[in-house]
Amino acid sequence: MSIQELFKAPLRVVNVGIESFKDVCQQHSPPAVQVDWRPPVEVAPESADILAKRAARIEKANQKVLEIILSGTPKIIGLDIARNVIPGMAEDTLLHAGPPITWERMCGPMRGGILAGLIYEGRAETIEEAETLAASGKIKYAPCHEHAAVGPMAGIVTPSMPVWIIRNDPYGNHAYCTLNEGLGKVLRYGAFGDEVITRLKWMENTLYPVLRAAVQHSGPIDLKNMIAQALHMGDEVHNRNRAGTSLLYRTLAPAICATCDNKVDSVAVLNFINGNDHFFLNLSMPACKAVLDAARNVKGSSIAVVMARNGTDFGIQLAGTGDLWFTAPAEVPEALYFAGFSKDDANPDIGDSAITETGGLGGFAIAAAPAIVQFIGGSASDALRYTHQMYEITAGESRMYQIPSLDFRGTPTGIDVRKVVEHNIAPVIDTGVAHKEPGVGQIGAGIVNAPIRPFAKAYDALAQMLK
Amino acid sequence: MSIQELFKAPLRVVNVGIESFKDVCQQHSPPAVQVDWRPPVEVAPESADILAKRAARIEKANQKVLEIILSGTPKIIGLDIARNVIPGMAEDTLLHAGPPITWERMCGPMRGGILAGLIYEGRAETIEEAETLAASGKIKYAPCHEHAAVGPMAGIVTPSMPVWIIRNDPYGNHAYCTLNEGLGKVLRYGAFGDEVITRLKWMENTLYPVLRAAVQHSGPIDLKNMIAQALHMGDEVHNRNRAGTSLLYRTLAPAICATCDNKVDSVAVLNFINGNDHFFLNLSMPACKAVLDAARNVKGSSIAVVMARNGTDFGIQLAGTGDLWFTAPAEVPEALYFAGFSKDDANPDIGDSAITETGGLGGFAIAAAPAIVQFIGGSASDALRYTHQMYEITAGESRMYQIPSLDFRGTPTGIDVRKVVEHNIAPVIDTGVAHKEPGVGQIGAGIVNAPIRPFAKAYDALAQMLK
Repeated sequence: MSIQELFKAPLRVVNVGIESFKDVCQQHSPPAVQVDWRPPVEVAPESADILAKRAARIEKANQKVLEIILSGTPKIIGLDIARNVIPGMAEDTLLHAGPPITWERMCGPMRGGILAGLIYEGRAETIEEAETLAASGKIKYAPCHEHAAVGPMAGIVTPSMPVWIIRNDPYGNHAYCTLNEGLGKVLRYGAFGDEVITRLKWMENTLYPVLRAAVQHSGPIDLKNMIAQALHMGDEVHNRNRAGTSLLYRTLAPAICATCDNKVDSVAVLNFINGNDHFFLNLSMPACKAVLDAARNVKGSSIAVVMARNGTDFGIQLAGTGDLWFTAPAEVPEALYFAGFSKDDANPDIGDSAITETGGLGGFAIAAAPAIVQFIGGSASDALRYTHQMYEITAGESRMYQIPSLDFRGTPTGIDVRKVVEHNIAPVIDTGVAHKEPGVGQIGAGIVNAPIRPFAKAYDALAQMLK
Repeated sequence: MSIQELFKAPLRVVNVGIESFKDVCQQHSPPAVQVDWRPPVEVAPESADILAKRAARIEKANQKVLEIILSGTPKIIGLDIARNVIPGMAEDTLLHAGPPITWERMCGPMRGGILAGLIYEGRAETIEEAETLAASGKIKYAPCHEHAAVGPMAGIVTPSMPVWIIRNDPYGNHAYCTLNEGLGKVLRYGAFGDEVITRLKWMENTLYPVLRAAVQHSGPIDLKNMIAQALHMGDEVHNRNRAGTSLLYRTLAPAICATCDNKVDSVAVLNFINGNDHFFLNLSMPACKAVLDAARNVKGSSIAVVMARNGTDFGIQLAGTGDLWFTAPAEVPEALYFAGFSKDDANPDIGDSAITETGGLGGFAIAAAPAIVQFIGGSASDALRYTHQMYEITAGESRMYQIPSLDFRGTPTGIDVRKVVEHNIAPVIDTGVAHKEPGVGQIGAGIVNAPIRPFAKAYDALAQMLK
């Protein structure tokens, strides 16, 4: 059939590749279907062969890693000040989200958070002083992830900040996270005004001692159980934490009431938690961190134990590749932007909160949270589709975290870098979006696919190690 | 084709009628499909014609009723003692669940609740004394529903019991309900031991004044908003109230903390609510009652404003048929029974809690609560199916109560008795099951279809009124 004849007959289009071509066809009415095909991910020519040859060894390592992840049991055991408990937290150390980065390469919100942190610490009185100090080389910047910690968005942790202490019971390791500041002008979105510092001081001087006494009174709080319940209540514990926050609140309120002798303080603390449905995020994150840290350094494993972004780079670490980071530029999320903002205002993806996806929650568990599409865009069927797709790139399914609408199927857990590369399916991350200028705050929320390059690099590195 | 030839060829079965025949076919491998057909409901011969002739008038009345239901806005405005606030609540009056019933015809759990109520009131010291008094004719029994009240299970309300006061804001009418006692040996399941009476006294002397002061402090609490949120968090607010209880708790805890000067009491109250995920049921019920009561007495309307069971009879009332009750024997639920119990132990369906279904919640909203199938049996797809089916017998959809997994479709609201009869689809009620002996308590939970006879009777009565 000649090309001319082809276009005389009614068209029926089978499209391979860019999906928008199919959409255009449909608008002009020829029936069109999309073939679910993606080009293979570019990796070193010998990697696939090496990994295929070592498949049995990798499987064995992955089973060990998966078992460590599935059996992890994170519990809140207390609160303390960062300098007292975070390993390697010197007075000149500031922790940040994502893979390692220099001051020079940091994005706006992360710089803003650093400046707020230095003023909060009394290391500078003005923004100008803080900027000079931040760039002076006297401050050491290190990823939270290298200090058994995680932080949402900019993820700044300074020595005086109070932190939750999470213990991963069967393995005895700990993880740490600051307390969630709430919405609006907050340090984690790079805000640094008086309002931010005043709130941080209140958190240090009132919120922290009240919560510390309450947790001492209540005893360890089982976060694994609480997250499992929250998933039955429409949370995915990354971008939707209303149920988790409610369940935590129910546990803490009687203990706060019993231990706090100052009514003004106890009411203020209860109202602060009650006013912020993301309060639980700073617990779901270190819960996952504690569990995944126990799975580090299992030679041969292709399972990711970290996905994190610093607003400039997106980085991952594997259980089988030690302390190596594999990075690529972070992408600007396709998001549902708040009124008055657009993608042009958005910072590239930022924060350690992708530890929830790494642990089988967040975007991976989004089918449990259909109500979230009001906040991030899309429809309930999209949420189901995202979770279904993540089963294709994971090593197993949670025994504890279930999706009721999938008849209690366990969430897809343990990202296998081989499956990511071989299917060319990037993990979905269900994230908040920061304004690119420091101090503006959150401007949207949405689903972002992780960039594929860090997974390709990790794939090659694992192959080289197993050669 | 002769019968013999028919059975020589491979069978492909199209089954009309009893579905189990199709199931048997499938077990023996011929492909079989079920035709979704039911016999028509038996009604008076002329009723259908009359109602068809009056269709325009009925539609107009139903639109008015639906608008009243959809615009109802129930709020907690306070608490008080039943005798002070419930209209017509004399010292010798005991209210009960369901349609009117005499002492002689009452089931075990309802009798048990009455005996507990008389001892609690100090009208009798022993069970024997209470039984003599209960049967003496000195005590007047009346449905909660005839006194602007509702009660779960036995639904007993005595003059000294504290009650929630709900106001339906745009219409100004009120509804009342006792406070939920929790699980185990409780009056509403017919238990009457010391444990029951002691708890009721604690509720009167501690729980009530603490909550009353807290609600005075917090101001009116918008239950419409809270129920809408709870539906986004996996509740259907009949058999699953974990989210509703959590949200109520978040609202009350700071107010309790601020107003209660006795720490032992405030902690005990917080722990009491926290220990009972059904606490919110006694608010979702009067929220629906307040809304539906405003829609009573709209002439010509075929929409139900009450479905209720007293453990002996199942009764309904329509907006268009005034104070008439249409009843039939209550059925024993097909349920998921707790270990050690079976259908033989079960009391027929009991309680006013079907007011939630009448208001477009409970079984009608069960698609919002997939996790509930762990408690009542079945699969997540059953939950979706129940809700989808209820759209066939309802007049409209809620504007406020949404089902996230159906892309925020409003819940099916306003049971139209014409649709129930003409499609032969009975409302689904998602219910708890009481032991038939007083004092044993809850022995299961499940889905029950309302008996069809009360709807057929109401259909005929409406037709007679519109003749």
